[in-house]
Amino acid sequence: MLIVLKHDVTKDEIDHIVEKIKSLKLEPHVSTGIQRTIITVMGDEDVIRELPLTAIAGVESVKPILKPFKLVSRETHPDRTVVDVGGVKIGGSKIIVIAGPCAVEGEKEVVEHAIMVKKAGADMFRAGSYKPRTSPYSFQGFGPEGLKYLAAAREATGMPVVTEVMDPRDVELVASYVDVLQIGTRNMQNYNLLKEVGKIDKPVLLKRGMSSTVNEFLMSAEYILSQGNKQVILCPRGIRTFEDVTRNTLDAGVVPIIKQWSHLPVVADPSHAMGIKDFVLPAAMAYVAAGADGIMVEAHPNPEDAFSDGQQTIDSAQLIALVQKLGKLAQVIERVE
Amino acid sequence: MLIVLKHDVTKDEIDHIVEKIKSLKLEPHVSTGIQRTIITVMGDEDVIRELPLTAIAGVESVKPILKPFKLVSRETHPDRTVVDVGGVKIGGSKIIVIAGPCAVEGEKEVVEHAIMVKKAGADMFRAGSYKPRTSPYSFQGFGPEGLKYLAAAREATGMPVVTEVMDPRDVELVASYVDVLQIGTRNMQNYNLLKEVGKIDKPVLLKRGMSSTVNEFLMSAEYILSQGNKQVILCPRGIRTFEDVTRNTLDAGVVPIIKQWSHLPVVADPSHAMGIKDFVLPAAMAYVAAGADGIMVEAHPNPEDAFSDGQQTIDSAQLIALVQKLGKLAQVIERVE
Amino acid sequence: MLIVLKHDVTKDEIDHIVEKIKSLKLEPHVSTGIQRTIITVMGDEDVIRELPLTAIAGVESVKPILKPFKLVSRETHPDRTVVDVGGVKIGGSKIIVIAGPCAVEGEKEVVEHAIMVKKAGADMFRAGSYKPRTSPYSFQGFGPEGLKYLAAAREATGMPVVTEVMDPRDVELVASYVDVLQIGTRNMQNYNLLKEVGKIDKPVLLKRGMSSTVNEFLMSAEYILSQGNKQVILCPRGIRTFEDVTRNTLDAGVVPIIKQWSHLPVVADPSHAMGIKDFVLPAAMAYVAAGADGIMVEAHPNPEDAFSDGQQTIDSAQLIALVQKLGKLAQVIERVE
Amino acid sequence: MLIVLKHDVTKDEIDHIVEKIKSLKLEPHVSTGIQRTIITVMGDEDVIRELPLTAIAGVESVKPILKPFKLVSRETHPDRTVVDVGGVKIGGSKIIVIAGPCAVEGEKEVVEHAIMVKKAGADMFRAGSYKPRTSPYSFQGFGPEGLKYLAAAREATGMPVVTEVMDPRDVELVASYVDVLQIGTRNMQNYNLLKEVGKIDKPVLLKRGMSSTVNEFLMSAEYILSQGNKQVILCPRGIRTFEDVTRNTLDAGVVPIIKQWSHLPVVADPSHAMGIKDFVLPAAMAYVAAGADGIMVEAHPNPEDAFSDGQQTIDSAQLIALVQKLGKLAQVIERVE
Repeated sequence: MLIVLKHDVTKDEIDHIVEKIKSLKLEPHVSTGIQRTIITVMGDEDVIRELPLTAIAGVESVKPILKPFKLVSRETHPDRTVVDVGGVKIGGSKIIVIAGPCAVEGEKEVVEHAIMVKKAGADMFRAGSYKPRTSPYSFQGFGPEGLKYLAAAREATGMPVVTEVMDPRDVELVASYVDVLQIGTRNMQNYNLLKEVGKIDKPVLLKRGMSSTVNEFLMSAEYILSQGNKQVILCPRGIRTFEDVTRNTLDAGVVPIIKQWSHLPVVADPSHAMGIKDFVLPAAMAYVAAGADGIMVEAHPNPEDAFSDGQQTIDSAQLIALVQKLGKLAQVIERVE
Repeated sequence: MLIVLKHDVTKDEIDHIVEKIKSLKLEPHVSTGIQRTIITVMGDEDVIRELPLTAIAGVESVKPILKPFKLVSRETHPDRTVVDVGGVKIGGSKIIVIAGPCAVEGEKEVVEHAIMVKKAGADMFRAGSYKPRTSPYSFQGFGPEGLKYLAAAREATGMPVVTEVMDPRDVELVASYVDVLQIGTRNMQNYNLLKEVGKIDKPVLLKRGMSSTVNEFLMSAEYILSQGNKQVILCPRGIRTFEDVTRNTLDAGVVPIIKQWSHLPVVADPSHAMGIKDFVLPAAMAYVAAGADGIMVEAHPNPEDAFSDGQQTIDSAQLIALVQKLGKLAQVIERVE
Repeated sequence: MLIVLKHDVTKDEIDHIVEKIKSLKLEPHVSTGIQRTIITVMGDEDVIRELPLTAIAGVESVKPILKPFKLVSRETHPDRTVVDVGGVKIGGSKIIVIAGPCAVEGEKEVVEHAIMVKKAGADMFRAGSYKPRTSPYSFQGFGPEGLKYLAAAREATGMPVVTEVMDPRDVELVASYVDVLQIGTRNMQNYNLLKEVGKIDKPVLLKRGMSSTVNEFLMSAEYILSQGNKQVILCPRGIRTFEDVTRNTLDAGVVPIIKQWSHLPVVADPSHAMGIKDFVLPAAMAYVAAGADGIMVEAHPNPEDAFSDGQQTIDSAQLIALVQKLGKLAQVIERVE
Repeated sequence: MLIVLKHDVTKDEIDHIVEKIKSLKLEPHVSTGIQRTIITVMGDEDVIRELPLTAIAGVESVKPILKPFKLVSRETHPDRTVVDVGGVKIGGSKIIVIAGPCAVEGEKEVVEHAIMVKKAGADMFRAGSYKPRTSPYSFQGFGPEGLKYLAAAREATGMPVVTEVMDPRDVELVASYVDVLQIGTRNMQNYNLLKEVGKIDKPVLLKRGMSSTVNEFLMSAEYILSQGNKQVILCPRGIRTFEDVTRNTLDAGVVPIIKQWSHLPVVADPSHAMGIKDFVLPAAMAYVAAGADGIMVEAHPNPEDAFSDGQQTIDSAQLIALVQKLGKLAQVIERVE
């Protein structure tokens, strides 16, 4: 921690700050320059992080030195985590593809959709039974009933299934039906929900918040790991910026940073990043070229009839092309570190 | 709804779109220009909003005409809502001030803090007993125990109390102790939580999400109203932008827009908007000059000892100055429409 | 300057960095903690700022301690600058109002517009003769001819005149006709233009770039001051963010920061910040409540006939109301430090 | 153009708007629904675009139907433009690489740097002789003298050379020495400069502004084409967002959009997008995977001694790896439309 003092700081103020730091059993080093005095504090940054240093008279700014996350960090855990979902290895050498419609649309439908996804060569199936919708008047999903349909889809295809959970009260039930629990963008900092999924023994796919920084994203993963669940998959899905020609702004640039800072695998979502079906393929290519371990896309046999997100949902032919293109790309980028 | 077709759209594609719209019992009007054909659809926009029009071949873009919210809209409810919290009228002619520490810090402490706030001339007390913290290793609040302390603070001062609720499982309990339930920034789109607070008979203070648009902010309020609870206070609190000299970017410009679009009262939070205690006063002035009905600030007798957010917490003298300055400002801006 | 080293930095790498810093005649202090080694460098930060420290092996990040600007800083120049434009004192106790149409619309018109502005009680007249337009097919302004009309407007009203200059080749000519030269948003980092206006003896009104940080904004002012011209007025005018219901996002929160960091006066532009004429008044109030020394607005007798920016241009009645409201506000906020 | 009227618009207001549109020789169609009346205007949108429709009483909002650019549009020019720079074809089937140091560092140096770039297998050389620097106290480049050094570098290697021009007064001189003129990010909307480079017969590489939308970016290209110069290369280089772990936010997602909307070639700059040398390669891969025709990177034999931008400058070994990786990637993505 580096504490920069104001140019007109007084000796009494400096003494007060030094005393405050010492009371935390930390050792401050005061350096006096021509224009500024600064105080360097070595030691456990977590202890001092809690202290509102800039509330103290004489302090101009505080600059942390260490990153706030521990369990998700590659520094403490240099080996990459591979999350094994029923034999599908996420974070290994193969680029994996998760696909399926935005929403569960009925029992017969979800099975048909899963078969389509399987035939296209994807590795895992996705569909939402609890739907977070901007409007209270929009279709809110099948709820618990849809979980049974998802189990039927897995039964029919042998593919593992991922679905979103929105409420801490539903975690146990959802975990009893599906293979991976998804935490949605709007719930990335729903800390009580994170704690609940941290207590179960199923992998969690954590989507990046719409305007969350990399640090915040990793701290939300830290919440899950801190409860005991180490199987977390990080899912960039575009961020909100001034650009409005796409639904969000593709955040492919964050992939190599996450891979350098953390040992957790990255599966990115080009459908939400772009929001336009014709741009899902180039966005998926960009994510994987930047280092993603896999891709999760919205796919439906007939996007114009999808219950939701049809505008960004690719059809069967597009999904087949995507799986093949990513397969070729995987060879080129030599996914061996 | 306006549907702009691609420049090379075919007649078959147009026919298909027209048929699709008619199947929803809506009436499409096709206009053919030199460069583009467009289809105008009058009628219930909610019906067509669900349809993924841009997933249909030949469609270039879709432009909604109506705003998606209804119950919160001034069009359907031209009279302003005044939320009465134990006699404190929010949205009336008086600028109200809510103040208190970020966190409940103990029973004795919270009573002292409330007395300080009362003496400074503020109208309502705030303190958090459930704390959403970025790090799982930070102080997470007193939880249910703190609710009792808040009740004691109200007992001691007669001031109504506002506190945050983070979990749908806690709504009933929190509502039994305090006067206003706060939905935090990170939970603005936690729809299950919104639905729960929509079912109780206590006012809700809804904070704006870090990067939520005005439409999304009002749609989250719509969730609460749609469940029956009409007592919602909207709380802008800064947004996330590229600017990093302040914790967030002051969103005073959003106040007159919300006041024009909605009948709900606005109480803004300059502490989180700026994140620096010396800038809380000018930010509060800006919010009120722009039309806010009140201000909620973090205040503590000794900010450098605050459990959290000390850097943006004003002290007793600053709170007294703020209450007085806002009082003068209220006279100038003639809060009579 | 604080240099944070990587957790696996080697002794050789540390020695190399230390040597590098010493070669600049600066004194590095190495502190070794449990998790990180850091190097503190006191002394002239400008010298080391040029060095690409993060390009050196073993360096994780570099944290500057000092702000990069000097001449515009209040630290080196604690007294506030008052820019005197033909008797109108900008940065003094009076809130000043600059008003006029977006564009010069003809000789007769510009004189009429100036008379309207004068009658409304504003202090200075504005109109653009060189117009930066997003489209090459839009009206580009009267150019040199319009400067003569502006001189006529000043003649007719006695009010000083401000107009934009876009090209270093025009600076001398523009300065010979008007009282204040405006540097537009899109040219805030047109350094050659900044250098040219830095060499003349006329005040410069510098608009903030669409997405410039406070530091960049002040560094652009520093360019002008570094050439000798000390009469700079800083003009916040909204910034670009994700919010799209207004043309830009009101940046009232930046005003108290600029006033704390710099001695230069601030005149803000609520017309461009909001882009909607009905919101110009609350935005102007917010800027002044936050500490601005004045306001520059677009005004026209008949906004729907304005050559450009009509949607954000207020009419005569609105301008009169704005001048009166700001006058009352000025009394409340006690503009005496 | 679609004009949405306010819910309480009067008949007189509608008549006035209709008359206004007819006076422009355009044909308005009025459609009255239950909640809103709208007016559709077919025909030349440029004419009506100039009209400040939202300044007119009764108008709620205006929704343009057509994109504002023409010459850069693929609609009017379906064939892709290939810019031929001394035999290097930009926009053809080959992914091209432009590399070199941020700044010209001397005659001997620039020749050495060009030889390094040539040996690494890149196609074109870049180095800046006029440097736009945030601080007036930073190195501002060699100016005209440096242009001669660049000519020497071309002489020595046979590679075409690209360099930035910042001032309309320098365009002719710069064009007499180099093969491609670069317009920098900060000058993307320096319209007078755009007009000057639009009059010469040399290719122009136009960098995207820090927070410019795709529409604005293409409109700046339109400025150049409108003056007669059709040889424009578009250069995305990262945008400014809330994310601050990288210098800018990688804008790979914009590439497929530009390629769909415009016929102009795209050469992207991963160095400025990321600002960190270790992330230049994955960012370059992402740009090309998303459809870019080439990459421009900062490279230097010894980045830690670079005059500027060393932190994002790759060395010789990294450049060789980048050229090879992009070559392999090019095969996979089948650059044949």
